[in-house]
Amino acid sequence: MNILIKNACAILPEGYDNCCAVAIRNGEIAAVGTVPADFRADKTIDAKGKLLTPGFIDAHTHVHMTALRNRADDLPFTAWLFENVMPMEDTLTTQDAYWSVQLAIMELLMSGATCFLDMHMFPGTLGRATVDAGMRAVLSRGLTGGADDREGGARRIREAKQDMERFKDEKLLTFMVGPHAAYTCDEAYLKEVAALADELGVGIHTHLSESEDEQKTIRERYGCTPAEFYDRCGILRKNTVCAHCVQLNDSDMALLAARGTSVAHNAASNMKLGNGFADVPALMAHGVNVCLGTDSAASNNSLSMLREMELVSLIHKGTHRNATAASASEVFDMATKNGAKAVGLGDRVGEIKPGLRADLALFDMSSVGFFPIGDPKAALCYSSAGLRADTVLADGRVLLEHGEFKTIDAERVKFEIEKLDKRLSGKDLKK
Amino acid sequence: MNILIKNACAILPEGYDNCCAVAIRNGEIAAVGTVPADFRADKTIDAKGKLLTPGFIDAHTHVHMTALRNRADDLPFTAWLFENVMPMEDTLTTQDAYWSVQLAIMELLMSGATCFLDMHMFPGTLGRATVDAGMRAVLSRGLTGGADDREGGARRIREAKQDMERFKDEKLLTFMVGPHAAYTCDEAYLKEVAALADELGVGIHTHLSESEDEQKTIRERYGCTPAEFYDRCGILRKNTVCAHCVQLNDSDMALLAARGTSVAHNAASNMKLGNGFADVPALMAHGVNVCLGTDSAASNNSLSMLREMELVSLIHKGTHRNATAASASEVFDMATKNGAKAVGLGDRVGEIKPGLRADLALFDMSSVGFFPIGDPKAALCYSSAGLRADTVLADGRVLLEHGEFKTIDAERVKFEIEKLDKRLSGKDLKK
Repeated sequence: MNILIKNACAILPEGYDNCCAVAIRNGEIAAVGTVPADFRADKTIDAKGKLLTPGFIDAHTHVHMTALRNRADDLPFTAWLFENVMPMEDTLTTQDAYWSVQLAIMELLMSGATCFLDMHMFPGTLGRATVDAGMRAVLSRGLTGGADDREGGARRIREAKQDMERFKDEKLLTFMVGPHAAYTCDEAYLKEVAALADELGVGIHTHLSESEDEQKTIRERYGCTPAEFYDRCGILRKNTVCAHCVQLNDSDMALLAARGTSVAHNAASNMKLGNGFADVPALMAHGVNVCLGTDSAASNNSLSMLREMELVSLIHKGTHRNATAASASEVFDMATKNGAKAVGLGDRVGEIKPGLRADLALFDMSSVGFFPIGDPKAALCYSSAGLRADTVLADGRVLLEHGEFKTIDAERVKFEIEKLDKRLSGKDLKK
Repeated sequence: MNILIKNACAILPEGYDNCCAVAIRNGEIAAVGTVPADFRADKTIDAKGKLLTPGFIDAHTHVHMTALRNRADDLPFTAWLFENVMPMEDTLTTQDAYWSVQLAIMELLMSGATCFLDMHMFPGTLGRATVDAGMRAVLSRGLTGGADDREGGARRIREAKQDMERFKDEKLLTFMVGPHAAYTCDEAYLKEVAALADELGVGIHTHLSESEDEQKTIRERYGCTPAEFYDRCGILRKNTVCAHCVQLNDSDMALLAARGTSVAHNAASNMKLGNGFADVPALMAHGVNVCLGTDSAASNNSLSMLREMELVSLIHKGTHRNATAASASEVFDMATKNGAKAVGLGDRVGEIKPGLRADLALFDMSSVGFFPIGDPKAALCYSSAGLRADTVLADGRVLLEHGEFKTIDAERVKFEIEKLDKRLSGKDLKK
């Protein structure tokens, strides 16, 4: 299948192109700017008046929790997690998870995202719902384990390996191993997981230094910071993504930079749970690769990458009292090529250039609130309230076209989530 | 004209109502919950599946600057204002301002706003564009003046009075006097303006303690804080709205509370220009009435009240490291009844209850990203990315219906703004 996108205002690595053509051959970007004479399009997308960007990459989420949004808000962390979210999460069936994942993918696509890095507890289901939607994803089965739960820890590792085997022929799915956190895995288990990553030749996806409680717990247990503890377990590597990193000190940042480890910054979630702000300008100054994650809809409560870009481009200007911090251009990179690099897909997606796969999003530049767009990257960061992607392609396949989902049965998803919602609510809205 | 809204999920002062009817008679809310037997509707809006809220109140903006968005970003304040925004603003004609105001109103309506408090420099034009759109607004001609510009200061006061006279029969327009700031008005001029507010029986709309530079300048000139200086000029009153208030100290906050002065919090603008965060939890603890403003599209760069609510409900949790700070319920109040009180319309709008004017917004609860909404106020704050109002009424008149503007020629606005945009750009997109 060959697709031609023409007349787009495109954000290319070398700058903006006001009237750009992109030729896509079997899912790959074959040409940008000038279309080869021998290129025959099976489908042509006239993108006049549309902004063309690389699809955004949500580098940390838990998509099975999407149906749990706005059910436990404005609460301290422990009340939020242990009294509300975990009890609800425990009632989710694999069917619930399937529809929550499909709802999440709808939301990601609407915000221009074409790929997500997930940590989950539903082996089989996550991959199936993602493949059915035609979405690109990097999946990790969440791993917890230690001396008090050797059997559970071993089972979760088996499930992670089975998941990779089950979906090994799916070209849009790749995998990482997913040790949950320094406070839910002990040293021996983390070393086992690090060895597993070596054995399988995959990256590592984990949470690091999210809360002050975590800092305190790890200091008490091991006499060091969570980052130092992770390093001694072999977790900090070039192909590791650490979500959060709110509480890193300067020496932790230098350590991550030295190891080539990426940070997935989750701005909304960190604020909403009262954890604070990861110091992104400092991480960048250390040379750390920073990308963006939404975290789950239970802690954000949105999966919009546009909204995450907006928050990131604003909050660091506020915390540093510096209008030049976290510029639109830097935040755009975090949402695209930095994300691709972090999740191990830097040679496949994240930019609009020949040879990469066609993961692309189109936005209507006449959309109220977005118009007039002025500088396109600034518009995506600062003027995207109410904005939704018009058309989105993953791996050269159209998943969203003029706001219509092409691979997901939106009505069915709504029907199934409404059923789940009623079960969780006992039919009554919370007062 | 009588309108019946039925089957709405409504946010009422007393709580949520899952199946609510609202009867509107000649622009006034006649009944909520049960419809009077004698009520005959000329128009019925079936709001099944829709969330009904009071229209939001944008309590600080400059709507004539809307076309200037995303043209000067990620710059220090002085480069932003003096080298970019002011030179562009200086080229705006009254026609440019007219269409910028109409574009702004489109954007405000899309985010559920039905009223704005503006400071402008286009007497006649602001009121005309607002009346033509059927929007509610509180207007203030921006006033600057002092020993070095007595004539200009006097002229601007004359224009302010003429504007009030010109639109005195427009029931949706009210007025405040608008001294610009402590650093652009001298003491004598501020006292004159305070006396003018007494004479005209109107409130005061001004900027206060936006930047550290302002604090320094006023300290050097008058040996006190801007709030103390304002108080000695008679500016701090019960019907005064001070925008920004980022740099207030504890004693300034106590002073504002004692005077009954309202604060319009402009979260996005304050972050974007590197000024920091107004301490909203502290202001609330002092008992100050806090409401929300977008500021202009040149400094925000959005006029979405939903986006402002999202930012406010997140950032203070981050700065205070407290997940219970600035709850969804508190932020909802800031955007509705606190705003109404601040702009002098507390007895007319801001809540859904009989006797108030029908300024109302409906949102589709099945909108992707918003669905499933869980707690409605939380959903408006935390899950409104990509959300747009479905239908909006101001003073009982439908201005937006299923996403279509009923009083504004959207195509004409787009055409005129595109012309202006090309003039400002020299046709080329900035690289």
